[in-house]
Parts: sequence; structure tokens; C-alpha cells
Amino acid sequence: MALYVQKYGGTSVGTTERIEHVADKVKTFCDDGHDVVVVVSAMSGETNRLLGLADAITDQPNPREMDVLLSTGEQVTIALLSMALQKRGCSARSYTGDQVRIVTDSAHTKARIQHIDVEHMQKDLKAGRVVVVAGFQGVDELGNTTTLGRGGSDTTAVALAASLKADECQIYTDVDGVYTTDPRVVDDARRLDKITFEEMLEMASLGSKVLQIRSVEFAGKYNVPLRVLSSFQDGPGTLITLEEEYKVEQPVISGIAFNRDEAKLTVLGVPDIPGVASRILGPVSAANIEVDMIVQNVADDNTTDFTFTVHRNDFERVQKVLTEVANDLGAREVRGDSNIAKVSIVGVGMRSHAGVASKMFDTLAAENINIQMISTSEIKVSVVIAEKYLELAVRALHSAFELDAREQNR
Amino acid sequence: MALYVQKYGGTSVGTTERIEHVADKVKTFCDDGHDVVVVVSAMSGETNRLLGLADAITDQPNPREMDVLLSTGEQVTIALLSMALQKRGCSARSYTGDQVRIVTDSAHTKARIQHIDVEHMQKDLKAGRVVVVAGFQGVDELGNTTTLGRGGSDTTAVALAASLKADECQIYTDVDGVYTTDPRVVDDARRLDKITFEEMLEMASLGSKVLQIRSVEFAGKYNVPLRVLSSFQDGPGTLITLEEEYKVEQPVISGIAFNRDEAKLTVLGVPDIPGVASRILGPVSAANIEVDMIVQNVADDNTTDFTFTVHRNDFERVQKVLTEVANDLGAREVRGDSNIAKVSIVGVGMRSHAGVASKMFDTLAAENINIQMISTSEIKVSVVIAEKYLELAVRALHSAFELDAREQNR
Repeated sequence: MALYVQKYGGTSVGTTERIEHVADKVKTFCDDGHDVVVVVSAMSGETNRLLGLADAITDQPNPREMDVLLSTGEQVTIALLSMALQKRGCSARSYTGDQVRIVTDSAHTKARIQHIDVEHMQKDLKAGRVVVVAGFQGVDELGNTTTLGRGGSDTTAVALAASLKADECQIYTDVDGVYTTDPRVVDDARRLDKITFEEMLEMASLGSKVLQIRSVEFAGKYNVPLRVLSSFQDGPGTLITLEEEYKVEQPVISGIAFNRDEAKLTVLGVPDIPGVASRILGPVSAANIEVDMIVQNVADDNTTDFTFTVHRNDFERVQKVLTEVANDLGAREVRGDSNIAKVSIVGVGMRSHAGVASKMFDTLAAENINIQMISTSEIKVSVVIAEKYLELAVRALHSAFELDAREQNR
Repeated sequence: MALYVQKYGGTSVGTTERIEHVADKVKTFCDDGHDVVVVVSAMSGETNRLLGLADAITDQPNPREMDVLLSTGEQVTIALLSMALQKRGCSARSYTGDQVRIVTDSAHTKARIQHIDVEHMQKDLKAGRVVVVAGFQGVDELGNTTTLGRGGSDTTAVALAASLKADECQIYTDVDGVYTTDPRVVDDARRLDKITFEEMLEMASLGSKVLQIRSVEFAGKYNVPLRVLSSFQDGPGTLITLEEEYKVEQPVISGIAFNRDEAKLTVLGVPDIPGVASRILGPVSAANIEVDMIVQNVADDNTTDFTFTVHRNDFERVQKVLTEVANDLGAREVRGDSNIAKVSIVGVGMRSHAGVASKMFDTLAAENINIQMISTSEIKVSVVIAEKYLELAVRALHSAFELDAREQNR
């Protein structure tokens, strides 16, 4: 007998038929004697429908009212799923974020969970009920409805699992686990049985968007075993867990992440004096543009070249900002390139293995792929290359690090 | 400076354009310095959409979950209307039934309001905000979401007006007031400037469905001046108020109501012994069939004929029930007729004027319309006639009681 918190996303509850299917799935766990708390998202398409209504009225919706509006999506799903469970003879009870109470701060549309009352849920579980909770939403101390930001249902699930000390938090989605890389790019991409929280964070932030990043951070912080599974097919999925729990030797690399949403900016011939980085990035940040990779090279004439990447959507805006900054600084030139891609190798095993980065660079060189930028962390190495080489680079690296050939030993 | 509670129904908020129109309307009141609390329904079609989702899952939805589901409809509208008001520079704040708090009993899908906390609303009004409240919903003492039954937004508005001691409760709808009879039947039907609560109750229950009956009862009980107006055109509407407030002499009859949704059943040759009525109606009531008019005639052979009307939808079911009952009672025969209509004259003036009923019967006789059943109350006389004579009867009575010719003196 275990306690599971299961989360089903928008696609998994996209129609009443799929909600019935989820009810079937939940029932098998109840029939096996487990306690189940189910967290659900809005039916797919519903959030966009609601956004469309708000958009028809104003392009500057009040965030408090936005939360009142959007939170109805999950509320519909909890009612329908509870009905479907009851039809199957499963006692069930729905809860909005307010009813649980999932108390958050008052940062509407991007609130953070502060604490969760588990009393009601525990009483229901004790009485043999399935507890069905609306994801993505909470309530602030003043009773205002809040939401956790898009994808926040994952965070709800992990937070509930942590509060209830659940045995596992299961995230049901439309993929059957976390892969060594995107299967649409590499045919031989392989589902991982296990991955560490840190690796998952790097994979997620680099574009393998299976889970919301905050939910993985949260799970890592509270050590909630997190499992990603498919709601449409059976299978063990991928368990995201602490490094220490690995039973076999660490593989060097867990996966290859990539991202083609970025653009690169370089300010050439900047005087090489202290404070230059902040004088360049200050105005960028003030314009609310997020910066990802940053590289600075020293040139030989007491000037330096400063390069960074931003989301491709911000490319034109950042160029305007930079042109002014470059003038003020007396820089020589601003160059931009939006035809780039970022490729990263990720793995906790990297820490204790020298030569991982050079193997990556060798592999790319062997394919005649020029590396434009390099950035490293303890468990990943990222490079920026021309976008046209992306698939080639990912396949070459996937093969070089033996991700497809290796036994599924983790 | 007055305090108005305004209620806008589903048609009035049926699209985002119409919500914007409502915001314009509300703003004119704010600009004139009035305090406004707005109660809104779900956008028209939304409740049916939600019912359809539930229906796709189960034909026996749990009432608690039904309320969780349906209450989302109004929640969407309060958010959108608040946004529309804010866009116009009107400070506004939305409240669900739970947030107000509108505390009800726990009778899901047909809950009754027990009390209303006015503190939050009064604080907002004092701060110059428009308060936008979701109609139709409340919360029970345990924190469960409840709903007041279809059309319950009227009840919410009246209850808020009573609690806040509002100067007027304005019900905006798609008609511009209460008429002497249905304008689709009588061209000369006239909008009433005023009508009493009692008359309105009789008119509403008899088929002039402008307002939900419970809201009128509530308004009468707490003496909340209630005004029915059109949200689509300007005009004073109809004020529903206490009898004593009439300034001119009472007219005899205020209006003609009618209803073609009923069917008539007669059990012939029932032994004329005590307890017969309950032996006939007991099983009908046990089958959850509501009975409207009841008439019993004594025949001359120690038997009696027992006649009553039910909603036409229940006609076949009630016939089955009655056939068994008639056998048990040794009655001679059961006859049914669904081609009937009920016509009623309504007016508080009737109390002090003799001859109103006979004038009605004379008028119908002059048109050769046979009366099948008669039922009277202090302020109305109802007759059942063959359905085919309905329009003829309504027009003849409307004219006989001078409803179209009379000056609009009330």
C-alpha cells in the first residue's frame, strides 16, 4: 500500500473520453489498495479559449482577474474526473486550490506556494476516497485566487507529494518518459529508466520540455521521487531521483539537449575596462529581455568582444537596445545572428570524468561543425553552432557518447 | 447617490461585445456618483456546454461535483466584466460566491442562502470600486461550493440588495419590463410601470417568466424594490414593489398570464370516501411528479371525479401511475388530455372588487370557449380551456379588462 500523487496534463484530460480513461487508470491503483491524490490540468484548448476571451476585451488584463478567469479551467476538470470516478464506484472528492488550501503569495499569474493544508486530504484518504485537486491554482492569505503560471500543475503535484510525504509523484503526459534526446531527431533515442534531478533540470531548461522546471527543483529540494509516464500507454516511464540512489556506475552522459529558440548578439571592440559587462547587460535586463549564455573574449588591442544569446523573439528589440549601448561605450560594431542553435550534453557522471568536453568538440570537428560559443556547468557542456548543423550535431554526439548502443542499465 | 445592485443575465453577457456593453452601462452609474454591485450569470450557452460535458460522462452526476462544475460559468463572467470595467478606468473587483461569502445550506444544486458577509463588499464600495459578484453560487459551512439552482442569479442579486440595504435591485434582461400579457399574443399588451410582489409571483408562476420566483418572494419578504429593465434598450422598466406604495387607485386586474405546458388528468368514478385525494396524489408525488391545479367534483352516485394538472413532460409517466391507482381504488376510468392551456387573470385589486371572476367567465362564454377547470386565489382566477382557444381567450380578456386601453397610471 503506497500513497501516490498522480498528475494528468491537459492532453490527458482533453476530452470526456480521455477523462474516463484517466478514471480507469486511477481505479486500477485504488483496486490495488493504494491511496491516490490526482492533480489535473485544464482540458487542452480550454486555457487558450479563456485567454482568447480576455484578449477580446483588453490587452492589459488585470492579473488578479486573469487568475479568477484561468482557474476555472482546472475546476471543470476536477468535477468531471470526480464524476467519472464515482461512476466506477470509486469514492472521490474534488478540491480547488482554495479548498485544499494551497496557500501562495499574492504574485498573481506567477504565484509561489507557501504552504499546504493536508488535513482535509488526509481525512478523505483515510475514508478511502480519491482526492482530486485542481492543479495550477492556489489562494493567497487574503482569499484571492492565484495561479502558479503556465504548467504549474506539475508544481502543484510535487508540492502535494512533498506535503503528504507521498511514496511517488507520477507525472502522466503524452510521452512515455525522458529520452536521451529528441526521438524526432535521433531515431535511436532511448528512454532513460532513471535520471537525477540535476540532470533533469539541465535537460528541461535546455529544451526537453517534459516537466516544468520549478516542479523539478521542488522535487529535488524535498526529495520527492518523481516519475514521468505516458497516460496513453503502459510502461515504467522515467524515475527522477537523487544521485545517491543509483545502483550501478554512473554513465558519463545521460542525454543530449538542444534548443533552436535563441539568437546571438556580439558587441565587437568594447574597451576592456571593469564594469563593461554590466553596462552592456544592464540596459538589456532593464528592457525585460532574458539573457541565456554569456561569453567574453579578450582581444589584443585592449578591447574585448562580448557575446550573449537571447530568445529569438527578443532579437529585434535587443538589437535596438545594443546599438545605443555600443555608441555610448564607443564599441566598434554590433553583430546579430538568429540562425543559431544550442546543443548540450548533460550528465552527472561528467563531474568525475575528464575529457568529456574535448570528446564533444572532437566529435563536432569531425563533422566540420564550427563552434561559435561554449559554456559549461558541472554537469553539462553547451555549444552554439549554426542552426543548419543542429540535427547532424545531435546525431553525431548521441552516437559518440554511445547513448543508443548502451544497455538500459539505469 | 444611491446604492444599486444590478443583475445581468446570460443573454446580456453572452459575448465579449455584450460584456463590454454591460461595462459601459455600469460606468454611467458610477460616473453619476452611485455605488454599484453587479451580479452576473454565466455567458449564455456556457451552462449548457458544461452540462453536456457532465452528461457525456454520467447520467447520475454527483450533485457536489455538479456545483463545482457549473459554478465555473459565472466565475468566467466576473473576471471578464471586471477587466472590461478596469479598461474603462472603473476600479472593479470580482468575487465568487465563496469569496463574498454567500453562505448557503448544503443542498447541492438547489441550495438556499443562509447569510451573506457584506464586510468585503462594503470596504470595496467605500474605496470607490464596483463589486462584481458571481450569481447563482455560494459556499456551505464546510467550504463546499454550492449553487442555487438555475436562474439563481436573480436570487443572488436580491439577497445582496437586502443584505447591503440597496436602494434598488435592478434585473437587466432581454425584455424591457413586465407586460399585461405576452406581447406575442396581444399586440396591444402594455408594459406596467409598477406591479406588486404578489401579482408578480402569480404572473411569474403562471408562465410570464421574467424573474425567478424565489427572487420575487425574497424581494417581497425583505421589501427590496425590484426593477426589471432591458440591457439592450433604455427605459424605466417595471418596478416591483409593496402594494402600499401605489399612489393611484388600484386597477382591478394587472395582467393576463397563461401557460401551455400542462396536461390534465381525470380519475372518474372514484368512491367518495375520506382519504381518496391522498391515495391518488400520494403515488404521483412519490414518482416525483409535480401537480399544479387540483379540482374535485362530487358526482351523484356516491362517487367523485378527481382532476388535476401536471407538466406536459410528465403526462405519460403520470398516466401509468394513475392506471394502477385507479385499479386499486376501484375507479371507473382514467382520462388524460394534453391539449389544454391555463389562462389566469391576476391583480391585487380583485380583493375588493366583486364580479371579477364572473366577468372573466362571461367574456369566455361570449367567445364560445368552454371552461374545463377553475381555480382561484385571492389575487387570481385561473381556468383551463382547450389549447386551441388560448390566443382568443387571452385577447378577449385583455380587452374586456381594458388592459390595452387604459392610461399608464401605475
